[in-house]
Amino acid sequence: MKNANQLGALEAARAIDAGTLTSEALVDACLARIEARNADVLAFTAFDRELALRHARTADAATGGVLRGIPFAVKDVIETVDYPTAYGSPIYAGHRPRLDAGCVAQAREQGAVVLGKVATSEFATQTPSTTRNPLNLGRTPGGSSSGSAAAVADFMVPVAYGTQTTGSIVRPASYCGVVGYKPTFGFIGAAGLKLLSPMQDTIGLLTRTVADAAFFAFGVHGTKLVAQDDVRPRLAVCQSRQWEHARPEMARAVEQLAADAQRQGATVRRVTLPAEIEDLVEMQIRLFAFEARQSLAHERQHDAGQFSERLKQRLAGGIGITPADYLAMRRRAAQARITIQALFQDVDALLYPPAEGEADAGLADSGSPRFGALWSLLHLPCVSFPVTRGPQGLPLGVQAIGAYGDDQRLLSVAAFLSEVARSR
Amino acid sequence: MKNANQLGALEAARAIDAGTLTSEALVDACLARIEARNADVLAFTAFDRELALRHARTADAATGGVLRGIPFAVKDVIETVDYPTAYGSPIYAGHRPRLDAGCVAQAREQGAVVLGKVATSEFATQTPSTTRNPLNLGRTPGGSSSGSAAAVADFMVPVAYGTQTTGSIVRPASYCGVVGYKPTFGFIGAAGLKLLSPMQDTIGLLTRTVADAAFFAFGVHGTKLVAQDDVRPRLAVCQSRQWEHARPEMARAVEQLAADAQRQGATVRRVTLPAEIEDLVEMQIRLFAFEARQSLAHERQHDAGQFSERLKQRLAGGIGITPADYLAMRRRAAQARITIQALFQDVDALLYPPAEGEADAGLADSGSPRFGALWSLLHLPCVSFPVTRGPQGLPLGVQAIGAYGDDQRLLSVAAFLSEVARSR
Repeated sequence: MKNANQLGALEAARAIDAGTLTSEALVDACLARIEARNADVLAFTAFDRELALRHARTADAATGGVLRGIPFAVKDVIETVDYPTAYGSPIYAGHRPRLDAGCVAQAREQGAVVLGKVATSEFATQTPSTTRNPLNLGRTPGGSSSGSAAAVADFMVPVAYGTQTTGSIVRPASYCGVVGYKPTFGFIGAAGLKLLSPMQDTIGLLTRTVADAAFFAFGVHGTKLVAQDDVRPRLAVCQSRQWEHARPEMARAVEQLAADAQRQGATVRRVTLPAEIEDLVEMQIRLFAFEARQSLAHERQHDAGQFSERLKQRLAGGIGITPADYLAMRRRAAQARITIQALFQDVDALLYPPAEGEADAGLADSGSPRFGALWSLLHLPCVSFPVTRGPQGLPLGVQAIGAYGDDQRLLSVAAFLSEVARSR
Repeated sequence: MKNANQLGALEAARAIDAGTLTSEALVDACLARIEARNADVLAFTAFDRELALRHARTADAATGGVLRGIPFAVKDVIETVDYPTAYGSPIYAGHRPRLDAGCVAQAREQGAVVLGKVATSEFATQTPSTTRNPLNLGRTPGGSSSGSAAAVADFMVPVAYGTQTTGSIVRPASYCGVVGYKPTFGFIGAAGLKLLSPMQDTIGLLTRTVADAAFFAFGVHGTKLVAQDDVRPRLAVCQSRQWEHARPEMARAVEQLAADAQRQGATVRRVTLPAEIEDLVEMQIRLFAFEARQSLAHERQHDAGQFSERLKQRLAGGIGITPADYLAMRRRAAQARITIQALFQDVDALLYPPAEGEADAGLADSGSPRFGALWSLLHLPCVSFPVTRGPQGLPLGVQAIGAYGDDQRLLSVAAFLSEVARSR
């Protein structure tokens, strides 16, 4: 028998509906895990036992709500009324927003219980939080959704909101051995998110199963979705120059999954990214810098002394990019979104590395986001899920990328692939 | 000799650079106009004489900054640190944000001076502010950027930020006889904007000339743009079923402008909107409702008693729209953005009504946003500019719509067309 904190969101929802589990017991188990482990993992930046239990009891007394009683954590770039929101920056230490972000308020409307806030790198950029990888406390959990991935991986909470602008969901998911779902751009509304690069910033989910990600993302809108494994999905291993940065074990993990999926009935072919899309990797960095300079303009002018050096450098990269340059980049990105559609004519999902390899030692760097950059810019839905372990004994994930707006199919494919990896 | 408050932004910037005008004198003249007229027009919701003059003197003492000394107003759905931001809702009366929105902070960085906040309809939806049309105080200025259009039309300020989700910039511009520029989606970053329908919400500008809109939009990013009239632009009058809602004088205004432009060297043809794009008008309302329900979820749950009945009804329109429906709408919109590109293969701008006709009598309704809906959903840049007067003696504008990301060309075409109308 699992402890309640080890249950997934869907399992827990079924148990709560069946009357065999209370939200109070579930939340209490999660809190006990946080209290036991957070001093080491440093995933949660804020939680409140009495408040969470009170909300859990309210959920237990209620009827209805697709997410009734399910605890979730919120990345600290997403605003919450009950907990401080510091955006990972000392500038905002103790800041208390006036209201819950739309995605938080809607989850609560469906009965979900906010368990607390989880760490983010500085404004969701590359300067890490202090969070440690729960699978090896000397290693990075990835970023920027570091607390979200670590909390879910460590069984502190079954679901956490994360955000991705470049690779901030899929990479920490891979490093921590959990599922990271970056939806189609804007599927989860951005109201109450601290914007960074608004044309890329995407709210998503960290969970322990693909089914949980689908359940929660659709449940927020009051729809009960139980993802069906897609039988015989049409897959393509997506080759690109970026693979030069994939370590051999990561490349093998993708190929092995493709081979296993083929044996389980999937069709697998190989596609190579068109050159005009490859070239967007460099452009994405410049587009990011232009937008982030504007999003953080107030802080740049008033509080830059509290920026990390790395953030200062990232923002300085936007100096000299003119609005005409920016619009030209936006046109190229729009054109690429059309070009990439062709790849999905007879493919349900592309397979791609979510990160270079296993989580590295040390906490000063959270790894490269490069394997998320294109898909974030192209607004495509992505799911990273664990498939194997690397030479250091740490998880390696694979990223499945779907067609624009076709999140439901992608989640089905990812559920199938995740099962292929699990049953290997 | 004009009073300083009658100068456009570009004229004023040149005079300030030449040393023939101080920002202090300009801001003082604008404040005098506000003090004389705001009790009637009700455009400004907050201003502070001493603060604005202090910032003007700082600008006078400074060197550099493309917008040095230029006063601008900020629609009250955009956050400002110096003035309350109420989003047009009693829920937020007296609310003081912690920081300036990105677009405000960047304008200030270039030396521009915040003159104050201007009225918005409730959360930028259709429940009007109390603002009156300065050309006829018994008539609506349009909405939701009511205060922005009225303040600029009444020479209280040369530039105001507005926002458009459906038709909230181009319509008030037409009603008040000013220029409304809705850029390509996201050209002006949304950080610090109260989101409503995040996949459509676009920050733009109200000014008295097209050149001023171009100057300020690019100036925010430190680029000095002087829009050149496009000689011989390729135009197309865009026919659609929506024209049934255009009053005869509006239809004539568009046709007359097209004919005049042709005489001045433009080529003009006629295009009809493809059916799959026409059909998006209805869909846009549903997409809006789904997103707005999420964006305003916290207020819906805690403060709905302070919503207008009209807003409650708009949000109720989102009930029953599933996330799968929403994603299907997003796919249709993406496909339509590809389809519409074809129209711009040999056309620089489409000509279209920005509103049904002149501003109506009464203040309880701000007019229909329908003529903005498609272009907002399609993310295309639009400029509305005054071309003539209608039977009530009030202005009629025409809307020029450009290709995605090609704002600079559109602004040139609009500058040409505006001159054609002026020199008639």
